[in-house]
Amino acid sequence: MTIKPLADRILIKMEEAEETTKSGIVLAGSAKEKPQIAQVIAVGPGGVVDGKEVEMYIKTGDRVITSKYSGTEIKLDGEEYTIVRQSDVLAVVE
Amino acid sequence: MTIKPLADRILIKMEEAEETTKSGIVLAGSAKEKPQIAQVIAVGPGGVVDGKEVEMYIKTGDRVITSKYSGTEIKLDGEEYTIVRQSDVLAVVE
Amino acid sequence: MTIKPLADRILIKMEEAEETTKSGIVLAGSAKEKPQIAQVIAVGPGGVVDGKEVEMYIKTGDRVITSKYSGTEIKLDGEEYTIVRQSDVLAVVE
Amino acid sequence: MTIKPLADRILIKMEEAEETTKSGIVLAGSAKEKPQIAQVIAVGPGGVVDGKEVEMYIKTGDRVITSKYSGTEIKLDGEEYTIVRQSDVLAVVE
Amino acid sequence: MTIKPLADRILIKMEEAEETTKSGIVLAGSAKEKPQIAQVIAVGPGGVVDGKEVEMYIKTGDRVITSKYSGTEIKLDGEEYTIVRQSDVLAVVE
Amino acid sequence: MTIKPLADRILIKMEEAEETTKSGIVLAGSAKEKPQIAQVIAVGPGGVVDGKEVEMYIKTGDRVITSKYSGTEIKLDGEEYTIVRQSDVLAVVE
Amino acid sequence: MTIKPLADRILIKMEEAEETTKSGIVLAGSAKEKPQIAQVIAVGPGGVVDGKEVEMYIKTGDRVITSKYSGTEIKLDGEEYTIVRQSDVLAVVE
Repeated sequence: MTIKPLADRILIKMEEAEETTKSGIVLAGSAKEKPQIAQVIAVGPGGVVDGKEVEMYIKTGDRVITSKYSGTEIKLDGEEYTIVRQSDVLAVVE
Repeated sequence: MTIKPLADRILIKMEEAEETTKSGIVLAGSAKEKPQIAQVIAVGPGGVVDGKEVEMYIKTGDRVITSKYSGTEIKLDGEEYTIVRQSDVLAVVE
Repeated sequence: MTIKPLADRILIKMEEAEETTKSGIVLAGSAKEKPQIAQVIAVGPGGVVDGKEVEMYIKTGDRVITSKYSGTEIKLDGEEYTIVRQSDVLAVVE
Repeated sequence: MTIKPLADRILIKMEEAEETTKSGIVLAGSAKEKPQIAQVIAVGPGGVVDGKEVEMYIKTGDRVITSKYSGTEIKLDGEEYTIVRQSDVLAVVE
Repeated sequence: MTIKPLADRILIKMEEAEETTKSGIVLAGSAKEKPQIAQVIAVGPGGVVDGKEVEMYIKTGDRVITSKYSGTEIKLDGEEYTIVRQSDVLAVVE
Repeated sequence: MTIKPLADRILIKMEEAEETTKSGIVLAGSAKEKPQIAQVIAVGPGGVVDGKEVEMYIKTGDRVITSKYSGTEIKLDGEEYTIVRQSDVLAVVE
Repeated sequence: MTIKPLADRILIKMEEAEETTKSGIVLAGSAKEKPQIAQVIAVGPGGVVDGKEVEMYIKTGDRVITSKYSGTEIKLDGEEYTIVRQSDVLAVVE
């Protein structure tokens, strides 16, 4: 069973925040804030969204930082995923 | 008696959330949240919506995930349906 | 005395909700919710609305489902009508 | 002294609601609601409004139904008038 | 010292509401409401505003009716003026 | 150290409101309201802002009236400045 | 590990506000307000954002003033960064 995002949406899975490592990225604020780094699981086809051509520059496997509170959460095989619009992705982590 | 959605709207029927299966998709949060996976029953013709050409990429029979809270609920022969805009469909499940 | 809707507006008359029939469409929720199926009494000419060309695809005599809360109610010869925009019509019932 | 509406605006005068006649249009709700049928007293020239060309299809002398709460009220020679945009006129009554 | 309005703005001075004359325009509501008839003192040059070409049709010396609550009030030599956008002017009084 | 405004922004410094002079412009309302006349210290280059070409017509040295509450305040060498968009400037005072 | 901002976004690091120096820029208001001067660490590629071509004029190493409350904060190696859109940058400090 696979989830295929539509239009300019991407399916991401939040990484566990590594709060103790010195070289890991940890979100600002308390340790209980929702982590913002995620792995890209699937990418929509892009195309015309709201009357504008959208090209997808995010790729499956990218590690991304997204806006807090953006997207819709779903559960698959007991794990949580989020569907966000590509424009809600702020940066790629390399 | 049939319902023909207009413009970029589609008629969907929510599936019962299978909360116990390990391979089924279950929405995040408590078991009482409204399920988000639905079967597409009918699809509007698309065309010019808000001055922009909309092409329908959702097909009758698709299983889809929609935004929570989107759409209008109606009852037909004792069963509940929802009418949503195609742009409220986040992903197709295969 | 006749009412001629302007631009992309249509004049509709809500049907009485048949709450007991098994094959009738009944709105979800309590029996006291406002019915959403209506008969189309008159249709505006369409044309340029908000700078965009609007073509009328709703016809007089259509039975339609509209968004709740949309439109303006008026009374004519003791009966209630509603004026809605064509874009507030979700589906045609056949 | 005359009032010349600008752009896509029209000057209207509300008719007294004839609450007792059976063939008159009376607004839904209590008898104390503001009447919505008005006589058109003057019509603006139309032209470019918000960057879009607007053609005036309402004419002086028309009897019109407007959205409740729309427009600005003014008093002239002791009588109340309202200035509304043409797009706030829902229908013409003939 | 002169004030030159910019873009599509005009400088107006509210007339004293003549509340007792029978032929004067008096705003609806209580006598304490802000008067809406004003003399035009200066007119901006128009031009491109928000990416759209705006032509000024209001002239210095016009008597105008404006939307309530629109504009910014300033004081010059002890007298109060208001700066409004031309699109906030509803009608010209002649 | 200099501040160079970007895009359609300008750096202004509020003049002290001369509340006692008869020929000075004093803002309406109580003497404690924020003054609205300012000296233009620096002007951004204009260019494409929100997809629209913006030409700067405000010049360094202009005395301007701005909307209340617009802009962002900063402190430089102990003095307060404000950065506003050119479109927030209502008028030039000469 | 590097963070690559996407589209019209830039990665900035807030400077410590030097509240005691006479030549330093200190934000208006109390000493506890969030500082607004930041060093630009990385700049996105620009391109089509919301259907409009955006050219990046901010460069890595620029010192910039941003709108308060704009952007998303992240933590990297124990230090706090912010990701903002280029249009949230008000001015460059030289």
